[in-house]
Amino acid sequence: MKPSIPKGTRDFNPAEMQKRQYIFSVIRKNFELFGYQPIETPAMENLSTLTGKYGDEGDKLIFKILNSGSFWDSVKGTPFGEDYIKKRQKQDDILKIPQDSWTEIQKKEFDLLLGYFTATNKLISLDLISQISEKALRYDLTVPFARYVVQHQHEITFPFKRYQIQPVWRADRPQKGRYREFWQCDADVIGSDSLINELELISLIDKSFGELKVPVLVKFNNRKILSAIAEVINASDKIIDITVAIDKLDKIGKDGVVKELQEKGIDDASIKKLDPIIEFKGSNADKVNILKQVVGNTETGKKGIEEIEYLLNHSKVNSCTLELDITLARGLNYYTGTIFEVKANAGTFTPSILGGGRYDDLTGIFGLKNMSGVGISFGIDRIYDVMDELKLFPESVSKASSSKLLFTHFDADTQAHCISLSNQLRANNIACEIYPDITKKIGKQFEYADKKQIPFACTVGTNEIANKKYVLKDMQSGTQTELRIEEIIEKLK
Amino acid sequence: MKPSIPKGTRDFNPAEMQKRQYIFSVIRKNFELFGYQPIETPAMENLSTLTGKYGDEGDKLIFKILNSGSFWDSVKGTPFGEDYIKKRQKQDDILKIPQDSWTEIQKKEFDLLLGYFTATNKLISLDLISQISEKALRYDLTVPFARYVVQHQHEITFPFKRYQIQPVWRADRPQKGRYREFWQCDADVIGSDSLINELELISLIDKSFGELKVPVLVKFNNRKILSAIAEVINASDKIIDITVAIDKLDKIGKDGVVKELQEKGIDDASIKKLDPIIEFKGSNADKVNILKQVVGNTETGKKGIEEIEYLLNHSKVNSCTLELDITLARGLNYYTGTIFEVKANAGTFTPSILGGGRYDDLTGIFGLKNMSGVGISFGIDRIYDVMDELKLFPESVSKASSSKLLFTHFDADTQAHCISLSNQLRANNIACEIYPDITKKIGKQFEYADKKQIPFACTVGTNEIANKKYVLKDMQSGTQTELRIEEIIEKLK
Repeated sequence: MKPSIPKGTRDFNPAEMQKRQYIFSVIRKNFELFGYQPIETPAMENLSTLTGKYGDEGDKLIFKILNSGSFWDSVKGTPFGEDYIKKRQKQDDILKIPQDSWTEIQKKEFDLLLGYFTATNKLISLDLISQISEKALRYDLTVPFARYVVQHQHEITFPFKRYQIQPVWRADRPQKGRYREFWQCDADVIGSDSLINELELISLIDKSFGELKVPVLVKFNNRKILSAIAEVINASDKIIDITVAIDKLDKIGKDGVVKELQEKGIDDASIKKLDPIIEFKGSNADKVNILKQVVGNTETGKKGIEEIEYLLNHSKVNSCTLELDITLARGLNYYTGTIFEVKANAGTFTPSILGGGRYDDLTGIFGLKNMSGVGISFGIDRIYDVMDELKLFPESVSKASSSKLLFTHFDADTQAHCISLSNQLRANNIACEIYPDITKKIGKQFEYADKKQIPFACTVGTNEIANKKYVLKDMQSGTQTELRIEEIIEKLK
Repeated sequence: MKPSIPKGTRDFNPAEMQKRQYIFSVIRKNFELFGYQPIETPAMENLSTLTGKYGDEGDKLIFKILNSGSFWDSVKGTPFGEDYIKKRQKQDDILKIPQDSWTEIQKKEFDLLLGYFTATNKLISLDLISQISEKALRYDLTVPFARYVVQHQHEITFPFKRYQIQPVWRADRPQKGRYREFWQCDADVIGSDSLINELELISLIDKSFGELKVPVLVKFNNRKILSAIAEVINASDKIIDITVAIDKLDKIGKDGVVKELQEKGIDDASIKKLDPIIEFKGSNADKVNILKQVVGNTETGKKGIEEIEYLLNHSKVNSCTLELDITLARGLNYYTGTIFEVKANAGTFTPSILGGGRYDDLTGIFGLKNMSGVGISFGIDRIYDVMDELKLFPESVSKASSSKLLFTHFDADTQAHCISLSNQLRANNIACEIYPDITKKIGKQFEYADKKQIPFACTVGTNEIANKKYVLKDMQSGTQTELRIEEIIEKLK
């Protein structure tokens, strides 16, 4: 039987790992340059921490962990436990005797058993799951972060800027670009409602994608605009429906959105009022003007426009394009202010590669009120796909091995001599390997260097050891040079 | 309800994360300098990949994941499924009718139900678990590595040197220093039986602990010696019992080991022969001589001694002490040659902080035979504890924040001015923050810098902006200096 891994999960080989580590290191470095501090939370959270936070659909996608210890221990006493089975067997034993020859004790016992099963069968319900599973795998980094902030609130100095880079697990149906285990890279600041945080996040996005050389379009909007729109068309109670519908504009087009709004009970006159917003194309300044016309006379609208103008006036971007997208909605319900979405501005990859926004009450679910925060999440698996398609990875991180040099040799003695040579290279931070097997076949050793894409090979024979000069071979060009070890170090440093 | 996390798991705060990242980065850098390449495997493996690989006790400690989708869907058709419940209810319904007034159909149905329950109750067994759980969390990195090698054997160039740094999960009873989620850092080379690999691992251990400044004792032995001993005392069939008993010498003393050997049926004359080995104290060379006397006349003993002498003759260590420990056994059964164990040589922490060894048939369990390999595993959580006790972490990684400077200000305008200043610092790789809230209270902003242990604060007011000179405050000494932004960059770079 050929071994395999669960569907929707992945092994990463050395070449993939190097490319992934490159993305992680650029993002992590920038998180730290912007003052975000790392935290990590456990892969498993209490089930009660996670359930009810992601909607009914989300709840179904949470991976639950069986209580540890013997399975039977964990179900003991539940309707499905050993007790239950034993009682059922006792009932079956009694039933094997013709009912008219039952003793008084058997009759009494049978009645008791029947009562027990009638009662417990009613109890057998979805509640079972909480009896055999109390833990679940992290579904995102946001809810664990909210839990962390509430749990450790007395040790934290607010405003708290944190970053977190960890895998999350979702029992989604796997498909291209969608995995059951994938990585999130989140940066959030919590306990501050200043718009400087949004500005800093825009700088962070700009600098990170700039360094990764991914051309991006940074779209933003403000949830207050969506609230004001709902208010203007007298449908404040339908704000979620409106958000969800407008969010699909990219996918289902204007007609689709109109149809969905109609289905949700928004009248045609109100939908008509949305036209300028849904249809408008123009500069960021033009869009602000449209917003002023449509929602500028509501309190919420005014506030939203003010926030948008602050960001447009103060943001400084070098490599990305910043676009006010007045139809951007973002699905998640907890956003209350600025919302962000980043898409690659080249190639064929269309899904967003970063998302985020401001939330006014993320920690409220765990009992800590009035904590405004704002954050973004880099979609590293998708960024990888974009960079791979556009061939944006530096050559140095796209190899089967990161070693710079392979020592080749002829026997146990010449191999052993390579140890001190390799240690000298490593002391100068030059990654190198000694061909591990002892073989006279130098060709086999060069083949190993070739396959692992190691750029240099250094041959160590008895003559070389005696003369303290070693043959350095450039594996790409084939050029061979005789050099002292210090010269090799100088060349490769 | 105060939120919490599952027992045996941990949150890591920024100060802990920085220290952990410091250890990881030193180990990772050295793995790469020695030519080990990174791979990662999924947190969840197929249950069948893991079960039966860690012994009965280990199997019980594997965290199993409930099949996704509705729980009822996953148990449907099993003894505990909806069908089972429905049948039980039907049985109970029939039983409510006095047996003598049952119809022929009811009699027939009852007999069928009784037969069904008799059969299924027999089936209700441990098999259930495989019906509701097919996946489990990684228990170590070794079995997933073996699975990886077999699954990807045709893409791999052997010998294959890989490293892997990932968390593992065990449903062990949590106690001091033992967690249910902890990290392993493994380096292995597979597909090579040359002893150069052992030598390189010794160099790697020496260099890594040297850089971490942890004084360590590197103990090693060879499983062939243990096999030879068993042979000499005519107890080759009891090699595992002997290994397990000698492995406990540290904990239960010589008397304890003798008692355990007696219990396992080794006769007193044979135990007597072990005396020189168990009791001997002396130099590495002295120990080799003892081994020659005791097992030097067996084939296996000769081979083991030869391997030990090779390592002693060729190893070069700078910072650690290398000790041949002829009583070192290491519990795991798959080791067949050299075995390693590292302990801190200072402080009060006694458990081993690294372990490893050579195995001749790790991938055999997945069908790939004759793949000799050797590897080590750094116990990062324990190394952390040792370094914390001995205060070995550099000051720079022991802070609540890694930011070098905090920009303080007085209002929205002066705060906004900080953006371009902070971007200049970041372009020079200086981590900095802008105090996120707008407040005239400069004291509150300094307090934030103090609490986060940010070493410098830079005040940006309207005068400062006009003069292009900013007040830089050294938070520790309290010294204030007026400097241009270029001068601040020069000072902090």
